[in-house]
Order: sequence, then structure tokens, then C-alpha cells
Amino acid sequence: MDASASPDGPQEAAALPLPDSAVTPKDLALHLTRLALTAPDLGSAMTPVLDTLVGHTAAVGAGYFQWREATLAYHARSASGEMPEGPQMAALLAHGLPGNMPLLRALERAEGVLYFEETQDCEIAAGFPDLGVRALLAAPVTSQSGELVGALLAHVFTPHVWTPAERQLVGSVTGLLALLAARLDAEERERAAHESALRAIGLCLEARDAETQGHTDRVTDLAVRLGEHLGLNDTGLRTLRWGAYLHDIGKIGIPDDILHHPGGLSAEMRGRMQEHVGDGVRLATQLSFLPQATLDVIGAHHEWWDGRGYPAGLKGEEIALPARIFSVCDVFDALTNARPYKAAWSMGATLEYIQDLSGQQFDPQVVEALLAVLGDELPAVM
Amino acid sequence: MDASASPDGPQEAAALPLPDSAVTPKDLALHLTRLALTAPDLGSAMTPVLDTLVGHTAAVGAGYFQWREATLAYHARSASGEMPEGPQMAALLAHGLPGNMPLLRALERAEGVLYFEETQDCEIAAGFPDLGVRALLAAPVTSQSGELVGALLAHVFTPHVWTPAERQLVGSVTGLLALLAARLDAEERERAAHESALRAIGLCLEARDAETQGHTDRVTDLAVRLGEHLGLNDTGLRTLRWGAYLHDIGKIGIPDDILHHPGGLSAEMRGRMQEHVGDGVRLATQLSFLPQATLDVIGAHHEWWDGRGYPAGLKGEEIALPARIFSVCDVFDALTNARPYKAAWSMGATLEYIQDLSGQQFDPQVVEALLAVLGDELPAVM
Repeated sequence: MDASASPDGPQEAAALPLPDSAVTPKDLALHLTRLALTAPDLGSAMTPVLDTLVGHTAAVGAGYFQWREATLAYHARSASGEMPEGPQMAALLAHGLPGNMPLLRALERAEGVLYFEETQDCEIAAGFPDLGVRALLAAPVTSQSGELVGALLAHVFTPHVWTPAERQLVGSVTGLLALLAARLDAEERERAAHESALRAIGLCLEARDAETQGHTDRVTDLAVRLGEHLGLNDTGLRTLRWGAYLHDIGKIGIPDDILHHPGGLSAEMRGRMQEHVGDGVRLATQLSFLPQATLDVIGAHHEWWDGRGYPAGLKGEEIALPARIFSVCDVFDALTNARPYKAAWSMGATLEYIQDLSGQQFDPQVVEALLAVLGDELPAVM
Repeated sequence: MDASASPDGPQEAAALPLPDSAVTPKDLALHLTRLALTAPDLGSAMTPVLDTLVGHTAAVGAGYFQWREATLAYHARSASGEMPEGPQMAALLAHGLPGNMPLLRALERAEGVLYFEETQDCEIAAGFPDLGVRALLAAPVTSQSGELVGALLAHVFTPHVWTPAERQLVGSVTGLLALLAARLDAEERERAAHESALRAIGLCLEARDAETQGHTDRVTDLAVRLGEHLGLNDTGLRTLRWGAYLHDIGKIGIPDDILHHPGGLSAEMRGRMQEHVGDGVRLATQLSFLPQATLDVIGAHHEWWDGRGYPAGLKGEEIALPARIFSVCDVFDALTNARPYKAAWSMGATLEYIQDLSGQQFDPQVVEALLAVLGDELPAVM
């Protein structure tokens, strides 16, 4: 179901550092909870749980499915063991469990784990016989407000009577882990929504500004690619991305007659325009959760490597790295796209221009990263 | 430490529905994890853990402290049992644990629980003897990225040698719960940051618009008070608050010469101005996580109860309740505050105006809620 899933499930779980052979369902639940709490994300938090279901019951494969409203389907987040094959399974992997499956309706009402000994005999398990799945267990994952947000599914390709020992183990393990999955899911949703809200600020600014549509997303994507190339970690990339969303937040206060001025700006107008940097930092500082690196992008994205930028005339590494990365991306995107007052430049002409200013406007290291990152695209366009 | 903390700690824990008398540290850990995972917030998630420390060890009181950068101090989130008294404790409750306490530095480096048998003999416990605390245990709560985000503290007012049985219990219970607290803390931070990002959109719009400063926060507060009075649940209040932040998001695209027009608008200008509602819904729809109630506020906050509003001319309960609530608040705030083209109206004149339009522009039920909610403030101003 994902690249790391192996077809020999029952052996897999042996690789798990379980307490020891005299392992009780309680030990397993504690152990898996601890693993899940230290996992980087919900998908990897659930993998050891799936491995345990496959390793300690008759199930030959198991998957964790998560509701994502945008697609009205449950998508596979992680899997263990042997998964069904064939066109139905391919469709399921591509599109998720259809939201109208009877099993999902049953899980919405379920108080605990649902067990199926022979899916062919049960309307609720409709769809599973077509996948070759004959015995099945399904544990609902429910949010604080009682909505079904996901499900742990484990299956056998032959009919199977789930034993009391299996039910005890599954109950102990999935009870706690389903609660935990719901909280991790809430954390992920909040993180995604938070990210989305910051991006929305960028999109709003774009809607007013003369920027071509898509500037925010393009410049953010490119900044993240350069950041990755330059070795930023996940936190560094996240704060750089936020800076990219918010870099021109100060333009909200620039009057239309300056922002949309058709020709060159007078010195006075240019002065007012440049105030967008300081205004932006002031506005962004009100977002108390924003890290310094994000404020750096907002405050220093018009500084130049040689000290001739604004507002502070910072020089070289006095300018924070995220701001140096971003300023290259901002100029790159402005040049390669049409604006009301100019046509789009070719990639070749743009890179030549940026290379000419390496060491003046731009950090040479970042310019090199840009060339490396765009390297693959170059032959086609230069 | 909070209103519900009782001075007879050890008895308290008996009220907990613990499995039974033959309770092992593992049982406790599983039980507390389950309770914490179903708790509405981090503070209440930690209370049963604190109760357990007080009920099952010599500790007479325990508190959960949480790092909040804004104050550079650990603030008490929940407490159990008997807390220290006196001016130092009052200061601690008001201001949190000072960020420069040696114990906090030690917790940042700690691999597990720190035990103090006599705080007077140990530099790291400086500050605690002044509170009358002689024996102490402190369990760090660390984020995924390794930062100290909180601490569980339990204390005795006499010196105490922590027994192996106590250490085993504390280790089992705090190990897992500290991991869980860190995840719940991450969820809370994301939620707060997400909220803050949405509010920022409102503040940005306010920075450009002719609205008086503080409009976003005032109108949001009032909408939430009316929502509470009208019985909205937490989810309803949250989505109403988001609608209040974002209600004028569509104004981002309105040109300055209309938005800042000094006198009355021409019919054409008014038409363009009214488009901010549809533009706003289109922009907000890009935020896929926004619930319908929030979109309703944006899309229907200029609809009138009698059907004479815009853009759709909806009538009565065809207009979603959050939008009916919000439209009263928006007008109330516009009238009671000065704008470039008008002075601030008195509260009395404003309420009279709004009452006159009850059943025409406004939902009578919402107007009544406004009068009820502002009731306390009225005698002073009318």
C-alpha cells in the first residue's frame, strides 16, 4: 500500500523492539502508545499498530485510513503486511475507501471494533469480498466531537473466526491508539489549517497587488526548493514558507495610486513604497507565534548582499539566510512572469541577470543553489 | 492553585474511577492516558495525573506548569492537593515560575524525572524552600523538537526520601503522560496560531480600511457574547469568530477611490462596493478548512431580516444565524465608533436605532440578545 510495506506481514512485526516474549495486551498498548507519541506524523504513528495487528492476530495485512473531506473518501495513510491486489484495490489506493461504503456508515455508529468472520455473509462488509478479503476487523477513530475521522482495518484472505485472545489484544491496542490517532489527527488538521490561513494572507495581497496570479505559490515553492538544497531542516523550511506567504504583508497599507502606479515612481512615492517592509514587520509582529526567521524574510527581503538594499542597508551574512534565499526567488518570479508594465522574461535571460548580480544584490551561495535547483529545467529553455 | 483544588489532596484521588485496588503502575498509566486523550484540553488532561501523584505518593500537592514564551514563565495549568501559601506562592500563581529558576535550566537538560529529598540542600531547587517546599519531584515535558514546553511538579512540605515504589510509579505515569502532554500542547499551540492567523487577516484589512482601529476585535468579542447568549456551542462560537475576522475579506479588491471615498457613493460605486461580499466568499472558499458557518457570515452579513439586503435578498431564517448575529454587531460597532465621516454615536442612540430596525434590518431575537448582553452597561450610558 506504500513503498515500505512488505508482502510478508507476520514476519515484519518481529523487527519491532517489543518488551519481550511474555508480552501482554497492556504491555503492547503502552509500548505502542509510547512509539506513536514520539512518531513524526500520524502515518508513522500508526505503522507499529498495524504491524502488531498483523504480527499478533490472524490478519495478514492492515491499513490505517483517514477521512479527508476534500475528496469525500478515506485515504490510506499507512499499511502493513499483505494487501489485496487487482483493479479494485488499485482504485481503492488511488481514490480511498468510497465515502458511501456500508462499513463506513456502520463505523460511524460503532461503539468499538467491528469483527467480520466471513464478509460474503454480511451486507455491512459489501465491497470487501470483491477485494478478496474474507475476514475483517475495523476499529473506528472518532474525533472529540464524535465524528468518524479514520479507521484501522485488518484483513484475512480466508474466512476466520476471531478468537477471544485476538479480540482482547485488538481491543486493548486499538482502544487507546484510536483515541491517540484522533488527537494526532486534530494536531495535523490544525497545522494544515494554520498553514492555509497564512497562505490566504498571501493570496489576499496578491488579489489586490499588481502581482500576477500564482505569485505567492510559485515564489513559496521555489524558496522551499532552494531552502532544501541549502540544507534547511523542516522547521527552517516551514518558517521560510511562512515568510514567503507574508513577505509583502506591509503593502496592505500602500495606497492604490502608488501600488498601481503605471510608470516609474517619484522619489517620494518610492519612499512610501519602501515603507511596506517596516509596516509589514509591525503587522507581522502582532502574530506572536511567528518565529524570528519569518520576520527576517519580511523585514530583509529587499536588503542587498553588498549593503545597498533597504531598509537597514544590511550586508552579507548580516542578512538572515531565509531573507537572502527569498529575495532571489522574489526577483526570479517577478522577471519570469508578465506584469502590467513588462512582458515575461525567458528563464535564460532571467538567470543571466541574476548571475550578473551575484555578490551585489544576491548571495552567491543562493544564486548557485538556484542554478543547481533549476538545472534540470534549463536545457529545455536556454 | 485553582478554584477546584482542594486542600485534602490524598483523599481526592479516591474519587477517581481507578480500575481497582490491585492497581499496578502500568494500569495507572493506561488509565490516565485514556482519561487524558478524552479530556477537552491540556489542563484537564493533566488533572487526573496530578491527582494520582498526590494519591499514590507522599506528595501532598502537584501542579502542571506550561511554558508560554510571551511571559517567559511557566504558568500553572492545573493543580491537585495542597499548595504552598504566602506571598511567594501568590506571586508564583500570578506570574508563573520565573524563567531563570535553576530548576527550569536543570529540566531542560534532564533525561527523566528529577527527585529532591531536601530542597534546602540543593542549589537546583533554589526558590522552593522559600515556598515551604522541602521535598520535590519534577518531570519535564519536552516537544518533538526537544524544547522544554512544560513540567509536572509534586511536592511535600517536609523532607522525604522518595521510595523505589514511588519512583517506579512516578516513572511509569509521568513518562507516557509527559509525551502525551507535549502532543496536546502542540495541538493547542497550532490551534492558537491558526486562530491568530485568521485574526491577522482581519487586522490587515482594518489597517487599510477606513474602519477605526480595534474594529475587528471589538466586533468579534461582541459577536461571541451574543452567540453565547443565544446558546451556540464551542464549535459554533469558533466559526462565528472566524466569520467576524474575515467578514470584509472581499474589500481587499475594492479600489481606494471607492473604499476611501469621502462623501456618498454613486450608484455605480455602491454596486462595486457591494461586490465585496461575493469576492469575499470566493477568496474564503480557497481556505478549504473554513466551515460553512464562517462562509455564511462573509456571504450574508449585509442581508436584511425583511429581505431588502444584498447580495441575495435572503429573508428571515433563510439567513444563517451566525450572519444575523454578526450583522447586528457590525452595525453596532460602526455606529458607536467615530469614522472619518461621522462622530461616534452614544450607546443609547445606537441601541434605539437598532431596536427601530428590529424585524426590518435585524433579527428581533438577535436584537433582544444585544439588549440583554449590554444590559449591565446600559444604566451608565442611557
